[in-house]
Amino acid sequence: MTGDKLSQTFAALADPTRRAILARLASGAASVTELAQPFDMSLPAISKHLKVLENAGLIVRSRAAQWRPCRLEAQPLKGAADWLEDYRMFWEQSLDRLEDYLEELQGKGKRRARKH
Amino acid sequence: MTGDKLSQTFAALADPTRRAILARLASGAASVTELAQPFDMSLPAISKHLKVLENAGLIVRSRAAQWRPCRLEAQPLKGAADWLEDYRMFWEQSLDRLEDYLEELQGKGKRRARKH
Repeated sequence: MTGDKLSQTFAALADPTRRAILARLASGAASVTELAQPFDMSLPAISKHLKVLENAGLIVRSRAAQWRPCRLEAQPLKGAADWLEDYRMFWEQSLDRLEDYLEELQGKGKRRARKH
Repeated sequence: MTGDKLSQTFAALADPTRRAILARLASGAASVTELAQPFDMSLPAISKHLKVLENAGLIVRSRAAQWRPCRLEAQPLKGAADWLEDYRMFWEQSLDRLEDYLEELQGKGKRRARKH
């Protein structure tokens, strides 16, 4: 039951190294060696992360050039964003409630200040 | 390196049962038994999913009522949506490219039709 596309996307994003790899690829294609550089990780460890991203359809590895550049494939991210969008009213509501509460606190503070 | 908040949110969302539980809670608080009903799953299996959602801060279980209702806590979803937002231009670009390609194909189709 976890093989569905959306689960695969979210699972791929559930790791800071994989998110950092995507962030790097947002500024252009890169080789595995280039992608490995900022991390204190072995090439096989990075390759494992790339495999997860590739299986989730979030990156594509070109077979054209010998350095086999990886590039970002953002479409699955749209699916994730669309799913989250349905919940926007809930987090906006809870921010509103927090704002109301802070205003109420400020109001109380002002009333207290006036008393002195 | 996977204990960070955002990774925990994405990992919690990487399962269709857990996403269905959140969708159910979007229409109001529910007990564990109510949440288990639509799934062909044992109560312990559902409880395990609820624990993952609770640890990710996506649900809160009230201790006030005896039936201990669960309710949705949407704030972590905002973090996930904010992260994805940075990539919006990439998936919109790729949709644009697809549109251009389809228009080009249609154009070719028209030219071909005119020849006959």
